[in-house]
Amino acid sequence: MRSLQDLPTPCLLLDLDILRRNVARMAEAVARHPGVALRPHMKTAKNAQVADLAAPGKGAITVSTLAEARYFAEHGFRDQIYAVGIVPAKLDAVAALNQAGNAVKVITDDLEVARGIAAHPGPIEALIEVDVGEARAGVTAEDPALLAIAAALGPRLAGVASHSGHSYAGRSLDEMAAIAEAERAGVVAAAERLRAAGHAVRIVSAGASPTALHARHLEGVTEMRAGVYMLGDLFQAQIGTHGLDDIAVTVLASVIGRYPRRDAALLDAGALALSKDRSTEKAPRDWGFGRVLDLDGRPTLGDAVVTRVHQEHGELRAASGTLPLDRLPVGARVRVVPNHACLTAAAHERYHVLEGGRLVAEWARVNYW
Amino acid sequence: MRSLQDLPTPCLLLDLDILRRNVARMAEAVARHPGVALRPHMKTAKNAQVADLAAPGKGAITVSTLAEARYFAEHGFRDQIYAVGIVPAKLDAVAALNQAGNAVKVITDDLEVARGIAAHPGPIEALIEVDVGEARAGVTAEDPALLAIAAALGPRLAGVASHSGHSYAGRSLDEMAAIAEAERAGVVAAAERLRAAGHAVRIVSAGASPTALHARHLEGVTEMRAGVYMLGDLFQAQIGTHGLDDIAVTVLASVIGRYPRRDAALLDAGALALSKDRSTEKAPRDWGFGRVLDLDGRPTLGDAVVTRVHQEHGELRAASGTLPLDRLPVGARVRVVPNHACLTAAAHERYHVLEGGRLVAEWARVNYW
Repeated sequence: MRSLQDLPTPCLLLDLDILRRNVARMAEAVARHPGVALRPHMKTAKNAQVADLAAPGKGAITVSTLAEARYFAEHGFRDQIYAVGIVPAKLDAVAALNQAGNAVKVITDDLEVARGIAAHPGPIEALIEVDVGEARAGVTAEDPALLAIAAALGPRLAGVASHSGHSYAGRSLDEMAAIAEAERAGVVAAAERLRAAGHAVRIVSAGASPTALHARHLEGVTEMRAGVYMLGDLFQAQIGTHGLDDIAVTVLASVIGRYPRRDAALLDAGALALSKDRSTEKAPRDWGFGRVLDLDGRPTLGDAVVTRVHQEHGELRAASGTLPLDRLPVGARVRVVPNHACLTAAAHERYHVLEGGRLVAEWARVNYW
Repeated sequence: MRSLQDLPTPCLLLDLDILRRNVARMAEAVARHPGVALRPHMKTAKNAQVADLAAPGKGAITVSTLAEARYFAEHGFRDQIYAVGIVPAKLDAVAALNQAGNAVKVITDDLEVARGIAAHPGPIEALIEVDVGEARAGVTAEDPALLAIAAALGPRLAGVASHSGHSYAGRSLDEMAAIAEAERAGVVAAAERLRAAGHAVRIVSAGASPTALHARHLEGVTEMRAGVYMLGDLFQAQIGTHGLDDIAVTVLASVIGRYPRRDAALLDAGALALSKDRSTEKAPRDWGFGRVLDLDGRPTLGDAVVTRVHQEHGELRAASGTLPLDRLPVGARVRVVPNHACLTAAAHERYHVLEGGRLVAEWARVNYW
């Protein structure tokens, strides 16, 4: 079996031990809520082996692209919500999956689209997207459009879905709990309003990793969607989703230049391998374009961060103190912890999987659309 | 043949007419300089058909990854510079390409690496990377390391290479010309110093699109490397590389939500399909995450830009005035012009090629490493 010294750089490492721990923690957190299921969002991991851990027994999942829907269906995950607003042109593809025995549900907040779903000859169910404060997508629980869309869907209405992406602005467990409660109240209010109008609302779906972990109660919700918790990242570590040691993905990179005069080194992981996500810019600790660990994943390189990126270059500097440049000759290998796992992982074709510190497998990712 | 209405969204469009115009313009600009060749950098386009236009007759090219080196070698482009600092672990792969009849040259600014290149059993030539002011990589022309590295390389020294990425900070043609001259002077000084010490310096390679276009003279330089000019983007349009109408790539996207109350729409192209590059933030005109055109590529949707992105969601708003939301029902298609073509294109598996406004081909990209 290859070692970390043999892998071509840059490449993506996945620590299976951390992944398992993260998956167990979320499963426990959601299990505190009777009647609430976890529907893991596979948009971050985009891999079937990870789905087997997060949704054991080919459980219900969430996807973000048609490519994911097809891939996970092929891998036996039949119960899916495709959680990006559907357009008419994508209905045939969803119906084809469902005719093959899957149950891929779509979401919409649009009356015309609801009519199109109702009129489609193939089997398609839809959830109505509810805006619980993020103002990204959805109708509010009070909006007259909610009832109109439900009426248009008729028996194809499967439920309601909300997303509390604004939970990412929360900075304390109390704030997270408050955002979770606002989301819960909003999506349940929408469900109750529909039920009062005579509609069956089977699924009441809410989600995002922080709220799934920190909600105090989830009464009326039937499932939570969450994804980034599996891999974790520097941003989530700062909003209480997990600790700094719970980040399962890192980018393995090589030093390609060493510059003692300016106390810097250069890595072969840049804007493509790391992404240009700067989400930690607004977090308590700004990690630049990533935190830099040694080959074993330990923080022994001082306060090392990636400070600047070009397409295939990442500049390594010490955020405080100095770099141990004697340990960073050209060819030395380091691991970069990402700001935002969803984006960094998407740049890579596959995971190199570590278990007990040893490489044990390569797992593919379903990138693109 | 499919139309733009049939393509799955999001996807990447390449306008062949604009590409040809951009390629011709750069070829003419470099041809003004006797003795200077254009060595197109394929890191942006990552496609052999584009290379056939930019480097006709299987001409010399530049690459940024081993994956590109292998791919372009397979497509007949034997003369390459792999223009990211080489590490010892990648030398075997380069030597294997060269043993198969290619001439892939590497770059380094490191004495130990130079010794490793000299000692490698396979055929590998190297250029010494020269820092001409960007302070990213390279040794300066005055640095004693320059001569030491050349001595270590011995007969494997092919030349010197510089990169003026700081030209991206230029804002006028005069500034660009000044940066180009500083780069020219720096890289030529390095070459002359090496020659004075008895080294043969065959290649004196400089580059970046703005300096290749705007250099007043290039005496002593043998070739210019440039890449982004082929596709163009909103950032380059603002630093004088080309006009706003010269951007050959756009992301085709569908409206997935329409929100008249906040004068916004939502697209199915977000952080992955567009990238999170915000290079225009510091340019005269901040285009958010991209400029939004109609399906024909015309600016008829008002002052429409992508203002916010999530993984698969892009929020469409009017930077001034209002959006013509009557023309943007769910399912409507638009084209998003990227801030930074190198990053946006890298998210996509292939180009859907337009010629005379019609889809004529699909061209693959060599992504990953």
